Amino acid sequence: MTGIFFLISCGNNPVEHKSSGIDKADYIQYVNPFIGTNKMGHTYPGATAPFGMVQLSPQTNFIPMFNNDGSYNPETYAYCAGYQYSDSIIIGFAHTNFSGTGHSDLGDLLLMPTTGDLVLDPLKTETGNKGFYSAFSHDKEEASPGYYRVFLNDYGITAELTATERVGFHQYTFPASDDAHFILDMVYNVYYYDDKNVWTFIRVENDSLITGYRQTSGWARTRKVFFALQFSKPFKSYGYKKYDKETYTGFYRRFDQYHNFPEMAGKNIRAFFNFDTQEGEKIRVKVALSSVSTEGALKNLAAEIPHWDFEKTKAGTKEKWNKELAKIEVKTMTNAGMITFYTALYHTMLSPIIYEDVDGRYRGLDQNIHTSDGFTNYTIFSLWDTYRALHPLFNIIQPERNNDMIKSMLAHYDQSVHHMLPVWSHYANENWCMIGYHAVSLIADAMVKNVGDFDTQKAMKAAVSTANVPYFDGLGEHIQYHYVPDDLSHSSVSKTLEFAYNDWCIAQMANQLDDTAVEKEFFTRSTYYRNVFNPATGFMQPRLANGHFRKDFDPLDTHGQGFIEGNAWNYGLYVPQNVDEMVQMMGGEEHFSRHIDSLFSMELADKYIEKNEDITRDGIIGNYVHGNEPGHHIPYLYNWTDQPYKTQERVRMIMETMYGPGLCGNDDAGQMSAWYVFSCLGFYPVTPGSDKYAIGSPLAEEAVIHLNNGKTLTIKAENQSPENVYVKQVLVNGKAVKGNFLKHSDIMNGGEIIFEMSDAPKN
Amino acid sequence: MTGIFFLISCGNNPVEHKSSGIDKADYIQYVNPFIGTNKMGHTYPGATAPFGMVQLSPQTNFIPMFNNDGSYNPETYAYCAGYQYSDSIIIGFAHTNFSGTGHSDLGDLLLMPTTGDLVLDPLKTETGNKGFYSAFSHDKEEASPGYYRVFLNDYGITAELTATERVGFHQYTFPASDDAHFILDMVYNVYYYDDKNVWTFIRVENDSLITGYRQTSGWARTRKVFFALQFSKPFKSYGYKKYDKETYTGFYRRFDQYHNFPEMAGKNIRAFFNFDTQEGEKIRVKVALSSVSTEGALKNLAAEIPHWDFEKTKAGTKEKWNKELAKIEVKTMTNAGMITFYTALYHTMLSPIIYEDVDGRYRGLDQNIHTSDGFTNYTIFSLWDTYRALHPLFNIIQPERNNDMIKSMLAHYDQSVHHMLPVWSHYANENWCMIGYHAVSLIADAMVKNVGDFDTQKAMKAAVSTANVPYFDGLGEHIQYHYVPDDLSHSSVSKTLEFAYNDWCIAQMANQLDDTAVEKEFFTRSTYYRNVFNPATGFMQPRLANGHFRKDFDPLDTHGQGFIEGNAWNYGLYVPQNVDEMVQMMGGEEHFSRHIDSLFSMELADKYIEKNEDITRDGIIGNYVHGNEPGHHIPYLYNWTDQPYKTQERVRMIMETMYGPGLCGNDDAGQMSAWYVFSCLGFYPVTPGSDKYAIGSPLAEEAVIHLNNGKTLTIKAENQSPENVYVKQVLVNGKAVKGNFLKHSDIMNGGEIIFEMSDAPKN
Repeated sequence: MTGIFFLISCGNNPVEHKSSGIDKADYIQYVNPFIGTNKMGHTYPGATAPFGMVQLSPQTNFIPMFNNDGSYNPETYAYCAGYQYSDSIIIGFAHTNFSGTGHSDLGDLLLMPTTGDLVLDPLKTETGNKGFYSAFSHDKEEASPGYYRVFLNDYGITAELTATERVGFHQYTFPASDDAHFILDMVYNVYYYDDKNVWTFIRVENDSLITGYRQTSGWARTRKVFFALQFSKPFKSYGYKKYDKETYTGFYRRFDQYHNFPEMAGKNIRAFFNFDTQEGEKIRVKVALSSVSTEGALKNLAAEIPHWDFEKTKAGTKEKWNKELAKIEVKTMTNAGMITFYTALYHTMLSPIIYEDVDGRYRGLDQNIHTSDGFTNYTIFSLWDTYRALHPLFNIIQPERNNDMIKSMLAHYDQSVHHMLPVWSHYANENWCMIGYHAVSLIADAMVKNVGDFDTQKAMKAAVSTANVPYFDGLGEHIQYHYVPDDLSHSSVSKTLEFAYNDWCIAQMANQLDDTAVEKEFFTRSTYYRNVFNPATGFMQPRLANGHFRKDFDPLDTHGQGFIEGNAWNYGLYVPQNVDEMVQMMGGEEHFSRHIDSLFSMELADKYIEKNEDITRDGIIGNYVHGNEPGHHIPYLYNWTDQPYKTQERVRMIMETMYGPGLCGNDDAGQMSAWYVFSCLGFYPVTPGSDKYAIGSPLAEEAVIHLNNGKTLTIKAENQSPENVYVKQVLVNGKAVKGNFLKHSDIMNGGEIIFEMSDAPKN
Repeated sequence: MTGIFFLISCGNNPVEHKSSGIDKADYIQYVNPFIGTNKMGHTYPGATAPFGMVQLSPQTNFIPMFNNDGSYNPETYAYCAGYQYSDSIIIGFAHTNFSGTGHSDLGDLLLMPTTGDLVLDPLKTETGNKGFYSAFSHDKEEASPGYYRVFLNDYGITAELTATERVGFHQYTFPASDDAHFILDMVYNVYYYDDKNVWTFIRVENDSLITGYRQTSGWARTRKVFFALQFSKPFKSYGYKKYDKETYTGFYRRFDQYHNFPEMAGKNIRAFFNFDTQEGEKIRVKVALSSVSTEGALKNLAAEIPHWDFEKTKAGTKEKWNKELAKIEVKTMTNAGMITFYTALYHTMLSPIIYEDVDGRYRGLDQNIHTSDGFTNYTIFSLWDTYRALHPLFNIIQPERNNDMIKSMLAHYDQSVHHMLPVWSHYANENWCMIGYHAVSLIADAMVKNVGDFDTQKAMKAAVSTANVPYFDGLGEHIQYHYVPDDLSHSSVSKTLEFAYNDWCIAQMANQLDDTAVEKEFFTRSTYYRNVFNPATGFMQPRLANGHFRKDFDPLDTHGQGFIEGNAWNYGLYVPQNVDEMVQMMGGEEHFSRHIDSLFSMELADKYIEKNEDITRDGIIGNYVHGNEPGHHIPYLYNWTDQPYKTQERVRMIMETMYGPGLCGNDDAGQMSAWYVFSCLGFYPVTPGSDKYAIGSPLAEEAVIHLNNGKTLTIKAENQSPENVYVKQVLVNGKAVKGNFLKHSDIMNGGEIIFEMSDAPKN
């Protein structure tokens, strides 16, 4: 294990040890939102409600995505969620942030309170003076689910944040000042670059209410966020500065449009609002978002926070969090383990996010306004990541939401001009990130597990349509050649493997619907992984359109070898739909087992390691990469050999070294954390779309899962200890499990699952 | 009279002489849409329905508004409506155009059919080759209400256009080609400059349907136009080119997004659609617009033109035009006069335009979507121009529409963050062009004339609110000083005079509602014109905040003398609310009369004349400027002296020299034409907001006005001839009129008004 860890202060989170019998009503005490905020975890510490549309969080830098020469600025990557724990300044509080993603966007509506001379630039003014940022220190910073607090040293202001689903609620305690300000920075963006801001429109409706919207073109190419911002106290004056090169101003030139003129518009705008404050005076700010209109934002504001009681909203959101976290009650674990577990569980509930107004209206992929009919609409589908464990976890503890998420994907399909399900979508946009069409995995998994009441026939139609879009990223070539030729499309092997798995998912859906023709067709397609396996080397390898394997090939290299974000050693183990055959292809159980052994134990040369992006030392064990998704199932693959105990060793080791004070890579919208939650409970969904879970080695000594069918499942790891990582036997309601797998029904029927642990491998 | 005229070919408009008894069903034969398309009339020849939201018209140039050094390109001004008669090329057909305005915008969705090699630049390619424009000649061009046809020489394509209110209908007759194209140029704009296009979004829904929108920031700062475009025949392939500097493309870089990829987005885009055509094959295209959404555009398309019968739509729109034109049946006039009259009448019905979808939804000033409740929503309010005669004309022949327009203005007020009625508004934007708040004139005029059922109390509230917005263009200063100090605000005298008239209008509204407090307050404000009159010079003059008149003052100069678009000689005669007092202030009737005599007869030096903009030789008689609005009432002012016969001389002379083959200045959204229509009928509303019309000298020998109250008014000019310009007596239903004025009731009661004409002035 070569991961380098760092220690993170837990702020004011209580960290007292409780060996058992914790207060049922206070799981949030175990959540440390700072976990993952250092280096490349890409989580944020700010305030949000479970699956909330508002993620109100401090932003600690403002760097352009591109250098002056047009080259990519690698510093960008650290700021996917706007916050880096190692920073010592805060530039303001933005209302939207991704959790854990490996590419980014958002950072809407940066609000910053200041005192003294008005400064409108975040870091440095044009004349080289200090920007409006403030220094802060972690000892005056606190974060817990639904609440964030920090003292802004430069201004003597205490900032507190909470949020409902659609409204951010700020509370600022000021010193006495006759020159206090709020900066509403509409220029700021996560992943900022020139021209990212397409249009900004602000109306000062009265002396304390502001509405408006921002349109950006970034990862989401056409994205609009509407807002309504209400101050608890009238401002005494206001204005804005425009940073645009203005060729033409029309007849606005006849006005001083920059001071106390209630309509502002442009591409790059920073507004300010001036106040007098008394010592200790609290100014509160509520900011509602909407994808539809300012009218929608005003409705959300009125519906969710019709008062000025900050503590009430904070308490309400904490209660929501506690309810969600209590779905899995871990009874016995070290306190550090409790923090890691509940923080992971917390991180699984930060996305997808609710994406509709209180009246059910939302902006669809076609940019028209739609109303969710019989479901709640969600967005932020990082599917290449989250199909693996996050959505399978939802099928256990969030089935209603997962059902709504699938309905949201079907609405996306209805609105898609490509007639496709989402690939990686956020905010009414398909951003086309990563490969495959893993939406079908979510659907197949839900169908096989009988989750939800979505229209399965329509889902089937959507899946088949998606799987046949010829211009989609290598898919046409894949259909034509029965593999993706490396000379015709990038990441050819990864795509071939993932398309094959996706097609197997469609076959499972067809099977559920007794559509034998489709099942047969897609089952055939699901075997195309065979076409990129090179028996001569034992690796999955890039193959050319002429049928030959490409000559230059380095199975250790992540780049240019036919894979994406993984090398052949890791990615080549991706046939989740038929691990048995893969094992045979690779020389049988013994040989396969040795391959994984080598993967974990070999030394990877520095040249194969990245500094900033997905394959960093932090997340690597030998050549195994836990810091990124393609390998997440690998530790569990020993279950398909006669050495399942090696899975048990590996997963316990990964749990204990790759999580905890920090994350070993991007949390990836909850996938990294979902891996942990499953593994803590002792099993993992290697093949979403099947009802099987591979058995691991539970970290939780006892956990109770409250299922939505009213049943309760208690999981006990008897005789569990740091040394006793091996599973001697698993009993489901007293009956010993044969083989290395649990079934979904074993979970959902409730009752008790007992893992009998031991310090010796079972052979 | 120094106006320089030009002759315009009437295309294929029938021009046979009919001395009387014309075919009642065919007034459209007298409309020549080319009138005003040369030089600065700024009308367009294309196809539109009465007050239609679509103005589908050829565009004959593509010039940037600014030169490379950032200076204004004066050529821009000629292209306010996209078309100049003197041009010999057409670059395509755009779906929105202003009629007659003096500043511009629009030109949405330029569509151009071509054959041969695909060319995507309108004038010249990057390599210096010919653009996609085509040469054309006027002898193969035809225009009439609701129909336009032209032969595109370069491609052998006949283009025909018609339109319903919300849908443009194109019909193109192609030669045989296996390389035919339609260019959908989303870069093109009237008044184009870099960065005007804020965002463009296009979806290729299927092989013949395209939807999308364009957002621009121009005269309307935040403007969105949505569309749905349907071809009658599937295209064989398509694509687009983006002209943006792209810093970041996200994951679209993984696709060939430029060919047969059905979603396009960017700031500057030109799309193309490829076809095979047979000799003589007709390809039809329907393009529906919406301010709301593409969904709205699709609804408009389905509701208004659910078929592919071009002739049917054309006939239907012609019928609508004939019905509108028949509201004033001119019985006897020379054929040339008939063309001038009916073209003028046609030009009065091109704006304001309907601005809502078939379901009543429209984008409001707050950028939210509203539904018109009990009215039809209109936009394009060029109020500084049109309050003078256009809306008074509507109060006679379009009272229902004028009622709806006032309701639209009240909706604008509801949506205005300034709590103001519109000043100059178009497409959900206040563009702040020109001065004053003349919306109150429309409202007062309608109230005094008992037109409509709008909420008069609300209108009153809106008017008072508007009249008290302190930051509005000199208004705060006006309220403080009782005139606009010239050192504090530009165009100070013009504003003082117009605010005073506007306030008088509010007093009239208050009078109607028996609100004596408001009446008194605004009557007082209506006298502030006195504060800029300099008795020492007899001129209205710029006055400083210290109370002194400004020293440097040239009453002939239009620029920098405290006036806007007029000089003191003309503009100083602007006290429509109390002409009697103005006459006295200026030394009594005789002196006043001589002032106007001089105005018409003096020689104006070249330095006072503009080349391109509002004060050109074309529209000048002496120093009197008919080509722009501030003088429009002046010829009628002799009625307040003992020499009304001079009015009669002047107005006949202006009618015969300033209209006809062309226009002597911008038609200004119909105001110039409305002056003509009124004057032809023998009277003019010098003071909108009163029920009085000043008598002129009718050009029409007999005209029948069909009133919406079911009554009919016949106006006869007995003994009328080119020499008999003088009015001996006016009889209203047999009763001789005392004085020089008609009342609104004289019109609306119907019956007969007889002007007894003579060749000698009545003294």
